[in-house]
Amino acid sequence: MRALLWDGTTARVGDHPEPVRDQQTAVVRVSLAGICNTDLEIVKGYMEFRGVLGHELVGVVEDGPSEWRGQRVVAEINFGCGQCPLCQRGLQRHCPTRRVMGIVGADGAFAEKVAVPVGNLHRVPDGVADEAAVFTEPLAAAFEILEQVHVQPGMECVVLGDGKLGLLVAQVLFQAGARVLAVGTCTAKLDILCQRGIDTVMFDCWRGAPADLVVDATGSSRGFAAAVAATRARGTVVLKSTVADSAQVNLAPLVINEITVVGSRCGSFAPALRALQTNSVAVEPLISARLPLCDAAEALHLAASPDVLKVVLRP
Amino acid sequence: MRALLWDGTTARVGDHPEPVRDQQTAVVRVSLAGICNTDLEIVKGYMEFRGVLGHELVGVVEDGPSEWRGQRVVAEINFGCGQCPLCQRGLQRHCPTRRVMGIVGADGAFAEKVAVPVGNLHRVPDGVADEAAVFTEPLAAAFEILEQVHVQPGMECVVLGDGKLGLLVAQVLFQAGARVLAVGTCTAKLDILCQRGIDTVMFDCWRGAPADLVVDATGSSRGFAAAVAATRARGTVVLKSTVADSAQVNLAPLVINEITVVGSRCGSFAPALRALQTNSVAVEPLISARLPLCDAAEALHLAASPDVLKVVLRP
Repeated sequence: MRALLWDGTTARVGDHPEPVRDQQTAVVRVSLAGICNTDLEIVKGYMEFRGVLGHELVGVVEDGPSEWRGQRVVAEINFGCGQCPLCQRGLQRHCPTRRVMGIVGADGAFAEKVAVPVGNLHRVPDGVADEAAVFTEPLAAAFEILEQVHVQPGMECVVLGDGKLGLLVAQVLFQAGARVLAVGTCTAKLDILCQRGIDTVMFDCWRGAPADLVVDATGSSRGFAAAVAATRARGTVVLKSTVADSAQVNLAPLVINEITVVGSRCGSFAPALRALQTNSVAVEPLISARLPLCDAAEALHLAASPDVLKVVLRP
Repeated sequence: MRALLWDGTTARVGDHPEPVRDQQTAVVRVSLAGICNTDLEIVKGYMEFRGVLGHELVGVVEDGPSEWRGQRVVAEINFGCGQCPLCQRGLQRHCPTRRVMGIVGADGAFAEKVAVPVGNLHRVPDGVADEAAVFTEPLAAAFEILEQVHVQPGMECVVLGDGKLGLLVAQVLFQAGARVLAVGTCTAKLDILCQRGIDTVMFDCWRGAPADLVVDATGSSRGFAAAVAATRARGTVVLKSTVADSAQVNLAPLVINEITVVGSRCGSFAPALRALQTNSVAVEPLISARLPLCDAAEALHLAASPDVLKVVLRP
């Protein structure tokens, strides 16, 4: 089958063996896959992954247990062992021996087909289009903040970064009742939030009072210091950026202002699918481009352009 | 009066005007003052403070409201405005316009006398010796962890650093019911904890499983990475080290393992005074040396030696 392969040097579309399923696995024929900033970090060296890239997908189960065959599905990306205490608590995404689709030890979704543990599958509700369902994984990552931090109605929240994840995070906090200010660098991207009634400001014009909660979704190693500086004493920074490089960080302000920093990664799919079903979060305006899988290498370059949001691939 | 003055270049004992009190202030004659690592950081450039150093003291009120005169006292070090929302919530220590004794805009306690807002005074219970009471401020900083983090009985805690603050933190977590492992570099210091029944290990021999809670009390910019590496997924790092320099930090593990980092500084005095009264925390074994105030500059050098714990000054 055709797949986008990363060999540590080059990302290239080529021929790759079809995934083989075992008792615990289903093979999903990919309908649509989304490019995430993590994919762009991987081709910069993050996680030292080799194989088929991609972890955001919607597809149809082609082979697997009979009750799943033919179902339209999305798939959680962390493949836990199922046995360890973390898996037993439902935290497969922190299983110490987990594989992660397209990131750690498991081929990803920029391919015609991908193998996924059956326990990771979620049916896509009728009425949620493929172009919405493909956002389930990043939207779940935005909802993860609500699992980790008690976001109270009226809480002053600042979201730094108007990339794909920043736009989802701002909407998730907004629908949870927070007072949200999104800070970005691109008017067109921030307009997506304005149309949902969310306050926005360009980074250069931003002179805000320190906020209760500041989310760093800049995807930049410089975002952390900006987030800490924007947080009130005893406030919280949520760190959503995974970047390949280390940064020079002054930790003293964390201590002096007793700030809490919460690292935040993947989330549960259920709240994300519900939000897509009820349209409480707008995702389809985030699609900047649709490309065939054969153009996946070019699509990666396009996704790295500053004005581009989500690029989706169709096998 | 005599005082240890820091002019930005040299710490020198010299003559300094006696503090003058106003309506809201008391003048305390210092009986004993303790040297803290923050004092050592200040003479390396931290906070750009100029004036009389020192913020750990026990003394007797010499001048002030009649109900305070002659009382043996300790003093909280953050002088808030009393009017702002944070002060109104009892968080003077986060007042945005606060002065901090011997650290920000207020002369400190390495002197014969020091001026303190009356609201910052606490009577020392009978039965608590001066050499114990002088630990109230750093012990309160250790108790601050219990105000910020829900430390549950049986929780696996690791304390990194066997300096003054590390030894207090280990004891506070232990008396709160946690399972504590203190990791240090000096057998003699760790022995103080062993004698209280607390598990200890030398840093070089430490091969622990990831813990629920790891406290970085190393006072070193390298402590942070070690603390993060020692924390389980979804666990908590408490950052107690304020160091003058920035550090090269890789923030990705915080995100990947969804670790929470809690910056922690000063605490309320009440729980610390209670612990001193009930002897639930041993502090007097931490005193390495007692020197007269006239030798304060030498005392600073001594306090910076690796084998030395608390150095106290007697005016």
